[in-house]
Amino acid sequence: MRRSERIAIMAKCLNDYPGRLFSLSYFVELLGVAKSTVSEDLTIIKEAWQAQELGELKTVAGAGGGVRYVPGLPGAVKDSLLEDLARQLEEPDRILPGGFLYMSDIIGDPVIIDRLGQILAGLFIDSQADHVVTVATKGIPLALATARALNLTTVIIRNDSKVTEGSSVSLNYLTGSRTIRTMSLSRRALKEGARVLFVDDFMKAGSTAQGVVKLMEEFGAEVVGAGFLVATAEPREKLIEDYHALLTLEKVDEARGKVVIKPFKAIP
Amino acid sequence: MRRSERIAIMAKCLNDYPGRLFSLSYFVELLGVAKSTVSEDLTIIKEAWQAQELGELKTVAGAGGGVRYVPGLPGAVKDSLLEDLARQLEEPDRILPGGFLYMSDIIGDPVIIDRLGQILAGLFIDSQADHVVTVATKGIPLALATARALNLTTVIIRNDSKVTEGSSVSLNYLTGSRTIRTMSLSRRALKEGARVLFVDDFMKAGSTAQGVVKLMEEFGAEVVGAGFLVATAEPREKLIEDYHALLTLEKVDEARGKVVIKPFKAIP
Repeated sequence: MRRSERIAIMAKCLNDYPGRLFSLSYFVELLGVAKSTVSEDLTIIKEAWQAQELGELKTVAGAGGGVRYVPGLPGAVKDSLLEDLARQLEEPDRILPGGFLYMSDIIGDPVIIDRLGQILAGLFIDSQADHVVTVATKGIPLALATARALNLTTVIIRNDSKVTEGSSVSLNYLTGSRTIRTMSLSRRALKEGARVLFVDDFMKAGSTAQGVVKLMEEFGAEVVGAGFLVATAEPREKLIEDYHALLTLEKVDEARGKVVIKPFKAIP
Repeated sequence: MRRSERIAIMAKCLNDYPGRLFSLSYFVELLGVAKSTVSEDLTIIKEAWQAQELGELKTVAGAGGGVRYVPGLPGAVKDSLLEDLARQLEEPDRILPGGFLYMSDIIGDPVIIDRLGQILAGLFIDSQADHVVTVATKGIPLALATARALNLTTVIIRNDSKVTEGSSVSLNYLTGSRTIRTMSLSRRALKEGARVLFVDDFMKAGSTAQGVVKLMEEFGAEVVGAGFLVATAEPREKLIEDYHALLTLEKVDEARGKVVIKPFKAIP
């Protein structure tokens, strides 16, 4: 097999499983070449991807070592993706009665959501989280994409009690609009001591996020990071302390059909 | 740039956007080489991936032509993935009161779900569908993965009427357990004449699937295929005519703690 053929295969393997540690022996066996050759091939992939800002191949030294791919997007792509998304969400016909924004088309687009998940993942790369947790329904795609990029699994909290998931822990919480809602999670979904990232599509005051923090406490789990597709500028003080968002919703003027939404400033 | 470097980059681009048509000019511009060189590089990737059964690079001739990647898994990987999954789901401690099976851990694992989505996508490759439709909550991950592999978007039907998605169409339907449930979808989620695939995690009699077919009729849309992670062997006659499943649940014996589940026979 030629070097270029081996690289086509190795690049695909690494890209298919972000975050997974591949031992050099894995590729030695798969491709039938010497370890030193695999090592040279990996260096080529690493440098080519790095030059295009397509993420990083991280080498882990030692007996249990190998190489893992940490996804990344070129800075310019990241910026234009968020700018484009902000412009799309500012279209007046997205305004729904009550000042909500229609976002379901974006949430259902795997190409967009995958890249947004990669951006969020980049912010949580050092969080040492075990899972990405979300609350049904609209946060699920972004949570999955974030988990995918971090090589984690997703835990979905249901917003009903009609769960067919065995014995579960439920929590009633008060939403920003003063409605009582329930969130519910199967007892077996999390292990004691788990570290979780909370990912959702939207945050206003943060009552759902606060509910998740409390529910996690019931499991002996800890929320070590929170990320949202959109967070509102107001109220400035949220019910959770630290969070990341991809976009900030500054204003929805339902009467004038005007929306102001911008890329979140704290995004590095 | 060396051939091996170009291939590392092209392989990643194609793999990142399954189903998307890349023109040769796109790579010519990105990599600064002649069209004939890009063409040779693509042939190398195509043959390397084909040899490993990693899917297909399809060439579209003509002015608007280019190349697109159709994901695929090696037959042996597909078989062992489904066999492993069946064994996992047969673990007695997955049995929940009422004879349900706990599957949330599998549904929340992006690595497994991505590959299951690729298998389902392979069955629907010629469906000319516009969207993948699912019903919240547990079908969402598989629907997204299937949509991703087919370069489609996902449309999520809610199972409540608390939707913040503007005016919507709701449908009441009777579940297999004789409960009345509601499904609801925003009016703007689908265009008249849309062709959709329905993907869900589980089907018993098919009452949800039948509900989706009816709801789609309200939108002037057509269900052109249905795929499930698990379908039960009984009742043999389902409320929808054609469907694919990845696994068949033959028996749950709650008293004896015995589950029998097998890869779906009709999978090619």
